[in-house]
Amino acid sequence: MPQQLSSPSELATLVENYDTFLFDCDGVLWNGDAVIDGVIDVLRLLRSKEKSVIFVTNNATKSRKDYKGKFDKLGVQADVEEIFGSAYAAAVYISTVLKLPQGSKVYVIGMAGLEYELAQEGIISIGGTATEDNTLESFHLDTFEKDPNVKAVLCGLDTSVNYTKLSKAFQYLRNGEEECKFLATNVDSTYPVKGGLLPGAGSLSAVLSRALGREPLSIGKPGRTMLDCIRAKHDFNPARTIMVGDRLDTDIAFGKNGGVATLLVMTGVTSEKTLAEASSHALPDFVIDSLGDLRVLV
Amino acid sequence: MPQQLSSPSELATLVENYDTFLFDCDGVLWNGDAVIDGVIDVLRLLRSKEKSVIFVTNNATKSRKDYKGKFDKLGVQADVEEIFGSAYAAAVYISTVLKLPQGSKVYVIGMAGLEYELAQEGIISIGGTATEDNTLESFHLDTFEKDPNVKAVLCGLDTSVNYTKLSKAFQYLRNGEEECKFLATNVDSTYPVKGGLLPGAGSLSAVLSRALGREPLSIGKPGRTMLDCIRAKHDFNPARTIMVGDRLDTDIAFGKNGGVATLLVMTGVTSEKTLAEASSHALPDFVIDSLGDLRVLV
Repeated sequence: MPQQLSSPSELATLVENYDTFLFDCDGVLWNGDAVIDGVIDVLRLLRSKEKSVIFVTNNATKSRKDYKGKFDKLGVQADVEEIFGSAYAAAVYISTVLKLPQGSKVYVIGMAGLEYELAQEGIISIGGTATEDNTLESFHLDTFEKDPNVKAVLCGLDTSVNYTKLSKAFQYLRNGEEECKFLATNVDSTYPVKGGLLPGAGSLSAVLSRALGREPLSIGKPGRTMLDCIRAKHDFNPARTIMVGDRLDTDIAFGKNGGVATLLVMTGVTSEKTLAEASSHALPDFVIDSLGDLRVLV
Repeated sequence: MPQQLSSPSELATLVENYDTFLFDCDGVLWNGDAVIDGVIDVLRLLRSKEKSVIFVTNNATKSRKDYKGKFDKLGVQADVEEIFGSAYAAAVYISTVLKLPQGSKVYVIGMAGLEYELAQEGIISIGGTATEDNTLESFHLDTFEKDPNVKAVLCGLDTSVNYTKLSKAFQYLRNGEEECKFLATNVDSTYPVKGGLLPGAGSLSAVLSRALGREPLSIGKPGRTMLDCIRAKHDFNPARTIMVGDRLDTDIAFGKNGGVATLLVMTGVTSEKTLAEASSHALPDFVIDSLGDLRVLV
């Protein structure tokens, strides 16, 4: 069972034991457009103690720069270098791990933030926000010519998804991984918005998974790729690192897959009931009601 | 192992042993726009012997009337009453089995043929080809008002699929089957078109399956619902009925699920290799190279 922390001495020990704090954002720092009470003070406290503070989000519709805009708007201090989104991690993965041949292209189901991060890493992308692929007209396979330079399809959340993009992505992927890699920024089944949930990146890539009979390599939480990406930029000692999140299946699993400690906050999607019913391998090391609870240490 | 039929006496026995012939269309009667050699003569022969001839297709983009247009164009005789598509079967299922309360509506991901069949059965549909839902603009959940009369979501192939339709369907289905039924015209993962395959109805409904964590009730082959629909209109003796198709996982499985005999033709998607590697429970009773082979009996 996870250790529930509430007394000031327990909270102080938690802060002493770790040097690097990885934070999920939505449900941990804020809910929608409302910062969770005390969070700004707590982040300031951690910085004053020279802790490394890193923000890890599966949101792939925004570049890190866009995402920093959200921090700024809500008055939460963050540097772009402290923000790791699955769009950025996907771009880093493609440029440093896949190392596609010179002139290769990536076919994108996704939005401007994802295209921006790819471009920043020097990756040529097609699809995405291109006018010709943002259409509800019929797709004609018999007149479609595949671009022979497309060596990967990258699927993220795309609120302009349509049959043309899905059909093109499917054509690129049909002949198998040798010819074209199947990547997803993340496989979250849903996506939190004002008023509830909408289908997430993992639900959109499910079209391709079903049609192809195979699953994508997912870059974001809970996979290892995102953590490898963070570590390439900010070296940290896993034994002195803790992942803080509100979701067992993404955040806590991410920390556990990466061999770091895990702290669940109850300000997001996980209810007491979900926690009580979770299987033991899914449980975090520690639980606190809210990240704001650490404010007692200020 | 299935019995391979080739001699005239074997073929004559096959025709004698059955009164009702259920035919898949694409890959059996024609490939794309080319009628398979001999098929027109064979259908004429069966009719001359007073056999019942029924055409069964999972294509839900066309109404039966539209589909008859394809028969006419290719010179293959068919009455609308002999044609069963999954759009029609879905409409019959909703009107006769689901029996939704008066004033209920069905939210549709699908095309004009599906809407037409629903309307013919007196079912009110929304979504589908409605202008407001055929958009690539962002979907705003906070200003979306659910229509309280929507009691089912029906997902078919929709080449104008987009995030607004997917998001609305997801909202209707989120509170479970008690509030809103999740139906699919069929769950074919791909869809044959000129030049190859595109993502099918089952790949589109996979967005909702993934987001919801549950699968739809599928009306078309290989499920039982389509056969129940046929039987409600044309009574037949299962012991004297045979399903003829080119796909093991839809056509042959459909016949086996329905307790009728099964005949595989090798003019469609199934290769000798696929047949040789298939597990015994997936195998048909009989195999012929082509439906046109029965022409020797003319």
